[in-house]
Amino acid sequence: MAKYLKKLSKMAGQAPGTLVHIGDKKTDKVRITIFDYNAEHYTEREAGNVEECFPFKRTPTVTWINIDGLHDISTLEKIGSEFELHPLVLEDIANTAKRPAIEIFDSYIFLLFKMIYYDNETDKLSMEQVSLVLGKNFVLSFQEQAGDVFGPIRDRIRKGKGKLRKMGPDYLAYALLDAVVDNYFIVLEKFGDDIEKVEDELSETPGQDTLKWIHECKRNTIVLRRAVWPLRDVINSLVRGESALVKKTTEIYLRDVYDHAIQVMDTVESFRDIISGLVDLYLSSISNRMNEVMKTLTIFASIFIPLTFIAGVYGMNFEYMPELGWRWGYYAALGIMAVVAVGLLFFFKRKKWF
Amino acid sequence: MAKYLKKLSKMAGQAPGTLVHIGDKKTDKVRITIFDYNAEHYTEREAGNVEECFPFKRTPTVTWINIDGLHDISTLEKIGSEFELHPLVLEDIANTAKRPAIEIFDSYIFLLFKMIYYDNETDKLSMEQVSLVLGKNFVLSFQEQAGDVFGPIRDRIRKGKGKLRKMGPDYLAYALLDAVVDNYFIVLEKFGDDIEKVEDELSETPGQDTLKWIHECKRNTIVLRRAVWPLRDVINSLVRGESALVKKTTEIYLRDVYDHAIQVMDTVESFRDIISGLVDLYLSSISNRMNEVMKTLTIFASIFIPLTFIAGVYGMNFEYMPELGWRWGYYAALGIMAVVAVGLLFFFKRKKWF
Amino acid sequence: MAKYLKKLSKMAGQAPGTLVHIGDKKTDKVRITIFDYNAEHYTEREAGNVEECFPFKRTPTVTWINIDGLHDISTLEKIGSEFELHPLVLEDIANTAKRPAIEIFDSYIFLLFKMIYYDNETDKLSMEQVSLVLGKNFVLSFQEQAGDVFGPIRDRIRKGKGKLRKMGPDYLAYALLDAVVDNYFIVLEKFGDDIEKVEDELSETPGQDTLKWIHECKRNTIVLRRAVWPLRDVINSLVRGESALVKKTTEIYLRDVYDHAIQVMDTVESFRDIISGLVDLYLSSISNRMNEVMKTLTIFASIFIPLTFIAGVYGMNFEYMPELGWRWGYYAALGIMAVVAVGLLFFFKRKKWF
Amino acid sequence: MAKYLKKLSKMAGQAPGTLVHIGDKKTDKVRITIFDYNAEHYTEREAGNVEECFPFKRTPTVTWINIDGLHDISTLEKIGSEFELHPLVLEDIANTAKRPAIEIFDSYIFLLFKMIYYDNETDKLSMEQVSLVLGKNFVLSFQEQAGDVFGPIRDRIRKGKGKLRKMGPDYLAYALLDAVVDNYFIVLEKFGDDIEKVEDELSETPGQDTLKWIHECKRNTIVLRRAVWPLRDVINSLVRGESALVKKTTEIYLRDVYDHAIQVMDTVESFRDIISGLVDLYLSSISNRMNEVMKTLTIFASIFIPLTFIAGVYGMNFEYMPELGWRWGYYAALGIMAVVAVGLLFFFKRKKWF
Amino acid sequence: MAKYLKKLSKMAGQAPGTLVHIGDKKTDKVRITIFDYNAEHYTEREAGNVEECFPFKRTPTVTWINIDGLHDISTLEKIGSEFELHPLVLEDIANTAKRPAIEIFDSYIFLLFKMIYYDNETDKLSMEQVSLVLGKNFVLSFQEQAGDVFGPIRDRIRKGKGKLRKMGPDYLAYALLDAVVDNYFIVLEKFGDDIEKVEDELSETPGQDTLKWIHECKRNTIVLRRAVWPLRDVINSLVRGESALVKKTTEIYLRDVYDHAIQVMDTVESFRDIISGLVDLYLSSISNRMNEVMKTLTIFASIFIPLTFIAGVYGMNFEYMPELGWRWGYYAALGIMAVVAVGLLFFFKRKKWF
Repeated sequence: MAKYLKKLSKMAGQAPGTLVHIGDKKTDKVRITIFDYNAEHYTEREAGNVEECFPFKRTPTVTWINIDGLHDISTLEKIGSEFELHPLVLEDIANTAKRPAIEIFDSYIFLLFKMIYYDNETDKLSMEQVSLVLGKNFVLSFQEQAGDVFGPIRDRIRKGKGKLRKMGPDYLAYALLDAVVDNYFIVLEKFGDDIEKVEDELSETPGQDTLKWIHECKRNTIVLRRAVWPLRDVINSLVRGESALVKKTTEIYLRDVYDHAIQVMDTVESFRDIISGLVDLYLSSISNRMNEVMKTLTIFASIFIPLTFIAGVYGMNFEYMPELGWRWGYYAALGIMAVVAVGLLFFFKRKKWF
Repeated sequence: MAKYLKKLSKMAGQAPGTLVHIGDKKTDKVRITIFDYNAEHYTEREAGNVEECFPFKRTPTVTWINIDGLHDISTLEKIGSEFELHPLVLEDIANTAKRPAIEIFDSYIFLLFKMIYYDNETDKLSMEQVSLVLGKNFVLSFQEQAGDVFGPIRDRIRKGKGKLRKMGPDYLAYALLDAVVDNYFIVLEKFGDDIEKVEDELSETPGQDTLKWIHECKRNTIVLRRAVWPLRDVINSLVRGESALVKKTTEIYLRDVYDHAIQVMDTVESFRDIISGLVDLYLSSISNRMNEVMKTLTIFASIFIPLTFIAGVYGMNFEYMPELGWRWGYYAALGIMAVVAVGLLFFFKRKKWF
Repeated sequence: MAKYLKKLSKMAGQAPGTLVHIGDKKTDKVRITIFDYNAEHYTEREAGNVEECFPFKRTPTVTWINIDGLHDISTLEKIGSEFELHPLVLEDIANTAKRPAIEIFDSYIFLLFKMIYYDNETDKLSMEQVSLVLGKNFVLSFQEQAGDVFGPIRDRIRKGKGKLRKMGPDYLAYALLDAVVDNYFIVLEKFGDDIEKVEDELSETPGQDTLKWIHECKRNTIVLRRAVWPLRDVINSLVRGESALVKKTTEIYLRDVYDHAIQVMDTVESFRDIISGLVDLYLSSISNRMNEVMKTLTIFASIFIPLTFIAGVYGMNFEYMPELGWRWGYYAALGIMAVVAVGLLFFFKRKKWF
Repeated sequence: MAKYLKKLSKMAGQAPGTLVHIGDKKTDKVRITIFDYNAEHYTEREAGNVEECFPFKRTPTVTWINIDGLHDISTLEKIGSEFELHPLVLEDIANTAKRPAIEIFDSYIFLLFKMIYYDNETDKLSMEQVSLVLGKNFVLSFQEQAGDVFGPIRDRIRKGKGKLRKMGPDYLAYALLDAVVDNYFIVLEKFGDDIEKVEDELSETPGQDTLKWIHECKRNTIVLRRAVWPLRDVINSLVRGESALVKKTTEIYLRDVYDHAIQVMDTVESFRDIISGLVDLYLSSISNRMNEVMKTLTIFASIFIPLTFIAGVYGMNFEYMPELGWRWGYYAALGIMAVVAVGLLFFFKRKKWF
Repeated sequence: MAKYLKKLSKMAGQAPGTLVHIGDKKTDKVRITIFDYNAEHYTEREAGNVEECFPFKRTPTVTWINIDGLHDISTLEKIGSEFELHPLVLEDIANTAKRPAIEIFDSYIFLLFKMIYYDNETDKLSMEQVSLVLGKNFVLSFQEQAGDVFGPIRDRIRKGKGKLRKMGPDYLAYALLDAVVDNYFIVLEKFGDDIEKVEDELSETPGQDTLKWIHECKRNTIVLRRAVWPLRDVINSLVRGESALVKKTTEIYLRDVYDHAIQVMDTVESFRDIISGLVDLYLSSISNRMNEVMKTLTIFASIFIPLTFIAGVYGMNFEYMPELGWRWGYYAALGIMAVVAVGLLFFFKRKKWF
């Protein structure tokens, strides 16, 4: 959290539209890949420099330019001026601490959202920011680093499976968005596994670590909510069809993504509910175990206390204590002690104290 | 929960409209039953294959085609192309992890909701997804497996009771929806019984199991809410009369189902309130019992402590301890001990400590 | 709660509009009373059978037909067909488990709400359902049993006090609604008394019963909310003047009832707040008392522990223990014990431990 | 609370518009004061009877008639019929248990709100109801008793300071409302002082009283919320300019009062947050103190337990116990005891147990 | 909090528009600085008295007049009459206890918001009120004292960097607002660091101070919310473009600030969530530590209790106790004690009690 804020405070005092890369430099080289396609054919190419992309802008085919790596400000600036992007849009692309947002311009739509990865080793969530610019016949996508969830989409373009190749750039933008939202379900699944693990732990041997773990889960839900809540509004703005760039036929697909986003939110909220129940369960479990120990020990002590008293009585040094002289006095005393002990055990048992 | 997410994550990376059956294969054979009726006569038939249904599409009578079993993708595809369903609709039908939704098309309305069963043995809720397609003169219903809550509706068609036979397919869709929502009340009743059982347990012998049980109840309310909350919006969309497929005269009936859905929600919310009160009651009850035990034992110990001290005093070996030589010294000591014990008992009693 | 759900689940599987009396049969005989009045004269009559009411339908005077007892389905059906009520309206009248609702038809308005009684003996709330049908020149009221809060209204009709006799049936409906809402205040008052009693108990001798009592209060607020929340919407629909059956001049009166309903809600919400504060107070009070006991006993024990140790030391059997031979050794030992005891008492006192 | 409900339940069963004074009779004599002014001159007079006010109704100057004391029904009725007030308005004026409300009529606006006083001695809040009737050229104000927060306004009329004398009756109504809302800040200030006192107590010596005090604070916030929440809506209705009686130029002033009301609400909500934090702090502080005591005593006991055991060993009466015959055996035993005691103390210290 | 209320209650009883400086006098001298610029040139000047500013009002260039120090009422009044500000606006400028607000007039827009500083030494937040008046060709800004977050904006004017010099006064107002909101991120960052520090403390040695610290954090979030929540509405009013003073081209920038404000709110809400989780963690950690101590001590005592009992038995003075005469009786007794002690230790270990 602190790290994320550190990024944002870096921005303070800058003129709006100043391009500052905010975030970790996650990759060394900026990598630009281009897909250009229509229903009949497609080209795939890795661009050596940013200028190679520009000719595609003027072709009637759908062009998808993907940029991995945001730290090279000059690349962003060149793309910005070629595609006539608003300075604030460029600022947002470079600032990886933004929350999901949408900005609809006359000639393009700017979309910003988060990819979420679940780190299997640390059980922590990590975020990567994705920005999309949807123009008349192109889609620009900006990512912080190589590696994404768009592999199946690239395959669909290559193989011409489904309707992707037959549809316009708005459908491509939808497909990218859909891939990101679908990926949330994978994260949620892992998350759900974790919660089940905690539940198992709770019924066995909960420790101080379990609570820290629950606390970690809580923070993860907070991260997820920050990524998904605003996304809902973003998709909703797209669905409402305020821009001619989104065709009527694509709207039903967007509504589908919207439903998925809602479902993610729903699940996150359910997780919150369940986790808060787990805290109760944990606290009660810990206190029950503790109580069990204390109760057992106290009962144990309570049985010896009267016995020790009896021993104390016959340890007194009075001259006239008839019992002391009895032949079987000692055994009688031991017998009485046994009776008392058994009697107390029986009494406690009947009271259901153990 | 994890299982439910496993299903959803299966979907990730698929092209939209790809038909993948998501969910457990709950039945082996796909079973198709057809009801075809108007006010005068009705036909009931079990179809051997999906093509048998198609002729009914063109008859002016109301046709209800019910499909049990969603794992046979080819059946779905055939129905989809015959009835001109949108690929996303087919995807939703096959994906049993969807939340309740409605999609209004020009020529048909697609409805998706959940049947809930209460498993009497495990006290768990199970869901089955039901999808309805309401067309001009037909209703398609898709279920995961045989066995449903539509028995009384079939009877009403057969016997011509009520107005069902006189009304159109929109009324049939309403009747199916109504049957599902009415069924929620049966689940709620069982649920209410469970809560009462917990309340009884709480006033008798609450244990760690009781809390787990309460936790289970909580999760069940979460499941119920996920099924019913969106249903409300679904019915509301129908009621608002946005489609010509729903006739004016049916709207009042839909409003009635809507009222029932609200009532289900209300009850679920009340259950949540009551359950959260039960957690308090449980924790307080556990801690009260524990306190009772500890208090009793501590009082018990406190009475013996001064007695043992007195015994210890007269167990000292000083040469000059006049009491030791007294004739009735021993009995005096015992007497003093008795007085102290009774005094303390009386004191604790007066303080209302037990 | 379970009982209330039992009623609702009875309804499942019935055709809509099927008349089933849902609820306890609270009275044996159906009792029908008729008031017919205008500004000049009034008639009051108890009808032997339901047909006696029908002539009044055609008179220009205001007619109030009150039916006590809902289990006689045939009576309801006759009224239904004479006054042309929708089958769902009749179903709602017979189903006493409905939540407050309003349905505005062209020729009549259907209102459903709850009378609440406070049972002084069990401190529980009981509900009775009241349904109103407001027509052009009549008001039908349906109750589960004889005995209601409409006495003063009958008196006002009889005596011609106020404007009731001069106004139409919409004003009568308002008056009945007003009587029910005013009655909520009486229930709230008793409820408030109860809460004060709990507060008194809390400062004296809280026990496990107190918590159960608080839990009972909580459930009562849940019952109240279920009755009043939807009523607000019901009245609001009336006020918005969507029906010509409600005259402009009556609207200000309805707004007044609306204000009262809000005030009831407000008070219920305040009660919820206060009750949840009481739970905190209770738990803290219980734990404070327990702590007090444990602390006192522990201090008590702590004083005797060193004394017993000293006695133990001089009970050792070493041959060379010079103190044992001293003339005043015994008294010195007792003295030291006294000093230790007083010293500890003083120390604990100064630490403010008791 | 109970008292407040007692008032309301008195109203039940009355015909609407029946004038019943609900509330405590807080003053014996009804006192009527009249201010009549325009920009040039002003008259101030105490009226002997209610009829003296009536001539002012017809003058073009602004007239402010203030009535202290609501128990004299006949006075209210005379004013009501002279100023043509709706019976429900008179009922609301007399019923001091109403929540803040507004009713806009064609010829006048009726406003009802609460003055809040902080009783310095009991630390409780008390409310007084104020009703305003704003007409074309007059303002009627009704209070339960003499003594209010309108002193500065009277001074401003007398001295002609500010714009009050130049403006119409709507501005006067605004000024009265403003005075009441400003007074809330004074109450809040005292309230804030109280909360600070509690915070100081919490860091010193929290007791059972502290919690009761916090509970009292909570109830006070509930009272405040009931007074201020609806006031917001009341002022908002005025601001929206639905009545010609409120001039355009006055609206900005009303918006200012509205801002103040929001600020009061904000502060009350902050208080709620802080108070709920104080409960946590209190509970933790109490439990920490208790833990401290128990821990110290337990450590104390734990040191003596092994010592007493050693003394017990050498108090055994075996014939062959070589240590007993040793010359320095006694001192060695004492030495061992000392070593054990110091060792344990050291051990506990190192474990940071005290 | 109390201090802040003290300010507000000072205002009570004043005529509206009365200029009273409410707040601490934070600076002695009122300091007025003037920037006057267009795309080509700029002037910067410190004004000796308020009249020096007036000529700039009539120039077509953009003029930014900044006033540090609000206690000099006469200065405010002169500016107010020269720039024709509404008396209530002047009152709001002088009253530093206002919450963020906006008032749109025909000829100017009045904006009020809060600068927040984080005091590194006391870890407390302090607020400074900033008021902006945005006119046709000027911006007035009022601050409580010298020192602000506008340094970079002054630099941008001086150096002509960015578009600031080319844009109108609405862009300047935006830039000032943006600087304030960006500054919130810096505060949030420090705040986030604090929370991390607490988390570290919690896993090491939580004390009573930790809780007080958490309580302090909570109060800080309350302060932040009070500053930011209303700001959102303020900016939103600006964005909605209700005034011709805000140009179309500036709107997208305002939307950007709006996004930032939302992000601040989001972060504050996340902090609230995290902090409330920390309270749980703290309480559980404290109680775990305490439990650990008590458990260890109780186990320790439980081992000695039976040993002492055995010693007591052989300390009895019966004449016939054969063991006492045995040659190895003493050692046998010691041996039994050792066996019992080791056995108990083993038993407790196996039960996982320590």
